[in-house]
Amino acid sequence: MSVQNMKDLFIHGVQDVYYAEQRIVESLPKMADAVDSEELEQAFRSHLEETRGHVERLEKVFANLDMKPKGTKCPAIEGIIKESKEIMSEVKDKETLTAAILADAQAVEHYEIARYGTLCEWAKLLGEDDSHKLLQETLEEEKDADQKLNKIAKSSVNRRAA
Amino acid sequence: MSVQNMKDLFIHGVQDVYYAEQRIVESLPKMADAVDSEELEQAFRSHLEETRGHVERLEKVFANLDMKPKGTKCPAIEGIIKESKEIMSEVKDKETLTAAILADAQAVEHYEIARYGTLCEWAKLLGEDDSHKLLQETLEEEKDADQKLNKIAKSSVNRRAA
Repeated sequence: MSVQNMKDLFIHGVQDVYYAEQRIVESLPKMADAVDSEELEQAFRSHLEETRGHVERLEKVFANLDMKPKGTKCPAIEGIIKESKEIMSEVKDKETLTAAILADAQAVEHYEIARYGTLCEWAKLLGEDDSHKLLQETLEEEKDADQKLNKIAKSSVNRRAA
Repeated sequence: MSVQNMKDLFIHGVQDVYYAEQRIVESLPKMADAVDSEELEQAFRSHLEETRGHVERLEKVFANLDMKPKGTKCPAIEGIIKESKEIMSEVKDKETLTAAILADAQAVEHYEIARYGTLCEWAKLLGEDDSHKLLQETLEEEKDADQKLNKIAKSSVNRRAA
């Protein structure tokens, strides 16, 4: 798409995270299956449910824009997921692998925190108040998910791996 | 490299951010040249100096590990930079472009915050106290850089683009 103004840029950003969220929905079950920590596995499965909710919220944002939901390929999330797959294939020890996957999940969360943070600001400035509210809800859930991962890393996963 | 344990994973992570920081050193001058905001341009140029310092700190971390500095290709930063280049080529309006570049710079910062956050924790657990201190200093600078970008986005760049 050609981006002429802030509204176009906002739409592009929404399409970018819509694509990213769908890739994350595909990845989370594999990450949950691969880790050797019940607590982390449970966190991934519960974040999978949240992520499905993020997809639905984005579909409401598209509806507010009178647009059909459509993703645009997001090289950033592709890169983060590629890096995660590479390290998963290189680590044999289960506890080390679990720490590696947790770290990659935090990289995913931070990508989303950056993008949703920006989209919230842009929605507000564009007067897209309903969309702003929806995006803000997701932003808070991404921040909470990152904090939860932090807690699991510090309290158990990293300690066991080290 | 084959990753057998937490120490190997830590080394892999250091090599990953070493590669990423060098790509960022290459990208920041282009981003500074492209934006239509003196304040943001200045922030990018001053962060370029800081980033050169992050590269030097990582070289000290390698020395602490008795290793030669070496990067490992980081698909995540490649993806974030690729996405930034794509959007830069699609946006013609200068003020919209400036907002897009600022958003991408925040995605880069968040990637680094995630990775340095993890490396700090791993260094501490591995008893790599000197490296922990160095990585913590960089982590704080990345967080400050993100906050500074946030401030510039809210106070001027996003407003002008909207």
